[in-house]
Amino acid sequence: MTIENISINKSFGGWHKQYTHQSKTLNCDMRFAIYLPPLASNKQKVPVLYWLSGLTCTDENFMHKAGAFRMAAELGIAIVAPDTSPRGTEVPNDDGYDLGQGAGFYVNATQAPWNRHYQMYDYVVNELPALIEDTFPVLNKRAISGHSMGGHGALTIAMLNPEKYSSVSAFSPICNPINCPWGQKAFTAYLGDDKAKWKQHDASELMKQASTFVPAKVDQGQADNFLTEQLKPETLEAAATLSGYPLEYNLHEGYDHSYYFISSFIEQHLTFHAQHLNK
Amino acid sequence: MTIENISINKSFGGWHKQYTHQSKTLNCDMRFAIYLPPLASNKQKVPVLYWLSGLTCTDENFMHKAGAFRMAAELGIAIVAPDTSPRGTEVPNDDGYDLGQGAGFYVNATQAPWNRHYQMYDYVVNELPALIEDTFPVLNKRAISGHSMGGHGALTIAMLNPEKYSSVSAFSPICNPINCPWGQKAFTAYLGDDKAKWKQHDASELMKQASTFVPAKVDQGQADNFLTEQLKPETLEAAATLSGYPLEYNLHEGYDHSYYFISSFIEQHLTFHAQHLNK
Repeated sequence: MTIENISINKSFGGWHKQYTHQSKTLNCDMRFAIYLPPLASNKQKVPVLYWLSGLTCTDENFMHKAGAFRMAAELGIAIVAPDTSPRGTEVPNDDGYDLGQGAGFYVNATQAPWNRHYQMYDYVVNELPALIEDTFPVLNKRAISGHSMGGHGALTIAMLNPEKYSSVSAFSPICNPINCPWGQKAFTAYLGDDKAKWKQHDASELMKQASTFVPAKVDQGQADNFLTEQLKPETLEAAATLSGYPLEYNLHEGYDHSYYFISSFIEQHLTFHAQHLNK
Repeated sequence: MTIENISINKSFGGWHKQYTHQSKTLNCDMRFAIYLPPLASNKQKVPVLYWLSGLTCTDENFMHKAGAFRMAAELGIAIVAPDTSPRGTEVPNDDGYDLGQGAGFYVNATQAPWNRHYQMYDYVVNELPALIEDTFPVLNKRAISGHSMGGHGALTIAMLNPEKYSSVSAFSPICNPINCPWGQKAFTAYLGDDKAKWKQHDASELMKQASTFVPAKVDQGQADNFLTEQLKPETLEAAATLSGYPLEYNLHEGYDHSYYFISSFIEQHLTFHAQHLNK
């Protein structure tokens, strides 16, 4: 595997680094970012939080705006932020911001023209962690978190792979994509018309039926423009009640869908993950 | 004065807001951002830190990337971030990133075509604080800080107006613009060829001759690409030694010119300003 470092910045005594690599899963070059806390060295390995971003984002949004490094440095946690889709001129795209590049939805596409590149589920679950654990001073202790489309990705990936993640969290996640416009558009394109296949990537459906639990924390702003039509956290909450899922869910008055919300509560999420990663 | 709110986001219990207004000083519409901590209300007024950004920036860079709101909320300090130049299709510009729009250098231009709009010194020192103190629940207690070109702006504005600011700080400031390419290009365009006029906006020259002191803190990364050619903090340090200026200067191994550096030390700067604002 070839991996190339393209930027490096010291922050809170640790290092933010961006890399490109050829992804066999996605059939294109991909960029990701990693934050390595001061504790990380060849002698001391650290656990990893994978962060999945929302629609239109790249590896940069979280690293620039979340204000996460202070606590990651203090707690000794690495953070890995992949891109949100395959990229490149050869990769199919769509005119909408909510399909195609920047909108991979963390599923494996089965439909043309998407299926050759849009395999974000396999990339995030398998190829990327293998690359990270081969390359950096990290343990194979993993947590996963994300925002909006990335919150959907984090919740579904954790529930489909409970043995791989010690905890999961999400900000403003798309909780029930089979019943919202963003999810219906993307799942139709990537997965086709068979709604039974959609349910395998719907956080509320998975949570309803779950019997193996990954401790989960979800935060949602009440002033979020997408709350009612796209996010539907009440469906996730009902599903957790049904299965007895350990979901810590909080609504926050006045907060919106932006990184101004995420940055306000990222410390709580990192502390939550640290508790489970260090067990 | 007409002032229009264009965005609002809750963050750390307080509010980030963007406004546009017609600037009489700059003869154009201007945008600025303010962070109001939870403490700010009509009953309780808070002091203000003015943040001046660097080349190419707007009001958004600091608000997105500095991670400053956590401590501003805790300390009860408002933060105001103006744009870095006049803006608009009617405002003269230059092909370079280091002159014209995004590069106002916090001086009053005396030379055509710049002099009609490029009056950033008067805007930051007079018009903007008057507008802020008329509009928001803030005290007329002010501190000032900035990055790179904005560090130059903060240092020179504080030293030229010691009665207006209780403290000043800077990250990676242009310390001696009369002797670096960025400063020479901008000062030639805005102020003309008379170098005596340049010295009135050179932090090192002002610090050398200062007799009224504003407590000052400067942080600089040693891995900053602009350190040797453009920033010259050693000149500022020598000037402080000469005049006995209370300058707290720190070099940081490994840090560069980016917001990854600023965010690592912004807590220290806010604490420094709070000590002086609350005296």
